[in-house]
Amino acid sequence: MADIRIGIIGIGNMGSSHAKHLNEGVVPGAKLVAVCDVRDERLTWATENLGKKVRTYENTEAFYAAAAELDAVIIATPHYDHPPLAIEGFGHNLHVLTEKPAGVYTRQVREMNEVAAKSDKTFCIMYNQRTDGTHQKVKELVESGELGEIKRTNWIITSWYRSQSYYDSGGWRATWAGEGGGVLLNQCPHNLDLWQWMCGLPKRVRAFCSFGKYHDIEVEDDVTAYVEYENGATGLFITSTGEAPGTNRLEITGDRGKLVMEGGNLTFHRTRVGEREFNRTHTGGFGGPEVWKCDIRAGRSGGAHVGIMKNWISAIQNGTKLLSPGEEGIRGLQLGNAMLLSAWTDDWVNIPVDEDLYYEKLQERIKNSTSKKKTAKGKTLDTKGSY
Amino acid sequence: MADIRIGIIGIGNMGSSHAKHLNEGVVPGAKLVAVCDVRDERLTWATENLGKKVRTYENTEAFYAAAAELDAVIIATPHYDHPPLAIEGFGHNLHVLTEKPAGVYTRQVREMNEVAAKSDKTFCIMYNQRTDGTHQKVKELVESGELGEIKRTNWIITSWYRSQSYYDSGGWRATWAGEGGGVLLNQCPHNLDLWQWMCGLPKRVRAFCSFGKYHDIEVEDDVTAYVEYENGATGLFITSTGEAPGTNRLEITGDRGKLVMEGGNLTFHRTRVGEREFNRTHTGGFGGPEVWKCDIRAGRSGGAHVGIMKNWISAIQNGTKLLSPGEEGIRGLQLGNAMLLSAWTDDWVNIPVDEDLYYEKLQERIKNSTSKKKTAKGKTLDTKGSY
Repeated sequence: MADIRIGIIGIGNMGSSHAKHLNEGVVPGAKLVAVCDVRDERLTWATENLGKKVRTYENTEAFYAAAAELDAVIIATPHYDHPPLAIEGFGHNLHVLTEKPAGVYTRQVREMNEVAAKSDKTFCIMYNQRTDGTHQKVKELVESGELGEIKRTNWIITSWYRSQSYYDSGGWRATWAGEGGGVLLNQCPHNLDLWQWMCGLPKRVRAFCSFGKYHDIEVEDDVTAYVEYENGATGLFITSTGEAPGTNRLEITGDRGKLVMEGGNLTFHRTRVGEREFNRTHTGGFGGPEVWKCDIRAGRSGGAHVGIMKNWISAIQNGTKLLSPGEEGIRGLQLGNAMLLSAWTDDWVNIPVDEDLYYEKLQERIKNSTSKKKTAKGKTLDTKGSY
Repeated sequence: MADIRIGIIGIGNMGSSHAKHLNEGVVPGAKLVAVCDVRDERLTWATENLGKKVRTYENTEAFYAAAAELDAVIIATPHYDHPPLAIEGFGHNLHVLTEKPAGVYTRQVREMNEVAAKSDKTFCIMYNQRTDGTHQKVKELVESGELGEIKRTNWIITSWYRSQSYYDSGGWRATWAGEGGGVLLNQCPHNLDLWQWMCGLPKRVRAFCSFGKYHDIEVEDDVTAYVEYENGATGLFITSTGEAPGTNRLEITGDRGKLVMEGGNLTFHRTRVGEREFNRTHTGGFGGPEVWKCDIRAGRSGGAHVGIMKNWISAIQNGTKLLSPGEEGIRGLQLGNAMLLSAWTDDWVNIPVDEDLYYEKLQERIKNSTSKKKTAKGKTLDTKGSY
């Protein structure tokens, strides 16, 4: 089977990392043949580091004009450009792997998903944390029913500390026009994706966000979100870039006990009988079900970014199942958009989010931005420092 | 100095425990001389277990009619009766120690506090968890400034599991008329008190309560409350009687790091420099302040219920400082009332709570109660199984 010929748009931090991996041959069946970046210095880097066989393009027009020589594209640009560049890729009959997040607002991502659905191409999103063995084990324990029906989820994910110098490192950073949000759009997409991947999407959200609370930025850097699921379970998602040291602790409570993921450890506090059954049958007044503390050993990690690329190439070549289908990228974004919209409107927000209302409210913020940072219009592919 | 002559109203679980302790002489300077209960079997118990020197009264009228032979009263009745019985105690020139909570709604507790303030008597509330060495250490680390300015508080206190048989054990339990609330009024008063004692009262609350979610009861058994403090810090309080096993984990984040109290352990993740200073001065983009994980050894526990009684007697006899002044009982109740009112109105609630609105909303619930449990009007002192 012929190697899949890959082009990468955006060779900043993530794009250049993917380029190097592909060039080193760690993804069987894949061959890097082209890269695209609007910054001269990144193209110089490409020429010096990727070899002469990898063609370089200084804009996406030129890149896609040569799409006939590609089978697939990896998009590693700033967030706003993921959907339009993915749509263009499908238009050129290419398989697409996009960096996270899927986009900035759900309307553009829905449009991308519709184009993807009509194509026969393989669409993947770089939710590399889905390859993590512990994350997979949590999902498996929930889905297999071991934990019983979920009652409550609680993720304190405040370990995204950033100092002002981080935000000052790129003019597009932490602006409504440049990134379309703060911690929810830049640092947390993995967590929002994992949360819905493990526990499903809630039906409504009531969130409290602070904007520029700990930094001289206009977007959110502190979030507390309360959610309610269809079955009546509740959930919390707490994040911040202003706490040091932060916490990364996920607790999921179900009828059969409690899962706690923290510090790389996974503990299942398992009840010997279901709580609902105990509640019905116990006659002793005080007291609860017997609980066993079980240390759960998770499987090995599935290779992070390289793992996602391998999985994508295998799906293209062999039709195997995608671990992180591109169409699912909209789910975590629903959560992030709902949290911001709830804070902006000081009200409940149902999921799916009203995509037109969200777009309108976002445009207001772009229009009224007082950020001193100006996003240069011509620098749409500036991925410097993206994480 | 003459012993303080004490009478106890209500000798159910807690009252009988206090009576036994006093009778055993573990509280220096205090002498149990009278008990009061509306239940014959409790008075029989008193006669058989407390000796003939302890007088028994079958109602509060008779008890208070003999108040001249008392110096102080301990009130261990159901919640609603704490304020009126305390007010009556002050009227008879008695020192007062009331069980928690201070009352059911803030209006009655404010009235009690006003009467207490006008008296020259020593007013104390049984917030015995304030005697705990770990709780005191948390408060001390916050107040001394070691933790720096607080950014976020987060208490997951779901370790209050109760089965249906618990609720069925008393007709007054978990009814609006009998207890005036559920987990916030019965199980959590200690936690609500400690939370405000350590971290102060927030300025407003947005809470989400479920009523009879896990049990056949009409009051709340599941609560998630988000709060905002005057300095901009945020907080969460999560409780439930429907999760097994529950969690008791308090995390307080400040400028100098993070305190975590869980499983009897107290850990201070201390930053070497304050986060705000690091934020201003760091130039490296990524990265955060150096953090030291410090295991904090707390002082010895101060004796729980007996400790509070000793502290109260010492304050009466020697004018020493009260650890748990009765007037402070209203503070935790502000939190509990605010949480319920926020859930009932699906809106923000400022602290202090609008006491008339709260009273009105509570009366609506009592009036519209469909609970099959009927609280016998004459059994106002039924403390059976109180905790």
